[in-house]
Amino acid sequence: MSRTYDTPQDAEDAYYDALEEGDLEILLAVWDESEDIGCLLPMQPLAQGRAAVRDAFARLFARGRQGIALSVKHLSWIETDQVAIHLVEESPQDHGPDGSPPLVVYGVNIYRRGTGGWRLILHQNAPPPPPAGNLPPMAR
Amino acid sequence: MSRTYDTPQDAEDAYYDALEEGDLEILLAVWDESEDIGCLLPMQPLAQGRAAVRDAFARLFARGRQGIALSVKHLSWIETDQVAIHLVEESPQDHGPDGSPPLVVYGVNIYRRGTGGWRLILHQNAPPPPPAGNLPPMAR
Repeated sequence: MSRTYDTPQDAEDAYYDALEEGDLEILLAVWDESEDIGCLLPMQPLAQGRAAVRDAFARLFARGRQGIALSVKHLSWIETDQVAIHLVEESPQDHGPDGSPPLVVYGVNIYRRGTGGWRLILHQNAPPPPPAGNLPPMAR
Repeated sequence: MSRTYDTPQDAEDAYYDALEEGDLEILLAVWDESEDIGCLLPMQPLAQGRAAVRDAFARLFARGRQGIALSVKHLSWIETDQVAIHLVEESPQDHGPDGSPPLVVYGVNIYRRGTGGWRLILHQNAPPPPPAGNLPPMAR
């Protein structure tokens, strides 16, 4: 798999497209080849390095929903020559099996520019806040 | 408040020290002066910009625990000339009011180098995974 992403956004588009398609190989091609990559999917343990990231997405795709279609809204966008940081809201396009509205989560995607263009080096999801007026105590 | 942090780690040390001291002004001095900063504390809504970040920590400090002492373990560390990304585990040093063990959370701290040295531009927490063998379905 040798694709070159000329911009961080190209890499990001490829990431979410591969997620929607459930295409593990294309998805992994968006990630940097180095072992310092890290991925925190919602409520999952940290995956560090190529093998762990592959396992994390393989498990995700094996959970009965081959592709995961997310609408992505950019909240903030910080870019330098070498690193791009995108703070996004990810909204699943499908409702839950019980018809519940999809859960929107925050995500940070960090890209690094290397000889092969821009690649994903870190993805971290964070849960959404609870309904307004009902904020829990901070995590202890 | 004019402090200069010569390295990302200097800024990070100042951040966690200020958190432990419950010192809002020093804490805010670690954050970049720009409006593109963002902060996602555990289960809280996104705070974007100086005023929102100030409010988020003011609320945190107002919750009856003036200072928050965290042990910080580095999981990964990616630095370029302009941006530094630290993936950490934050372990509260205090047990909960009911004696429950403290909840360890993941955190990403991103620093940017400007004319005033290194400053924090993004902090995002992510919840810890549930106990092994009991992973929930992915967030929908």
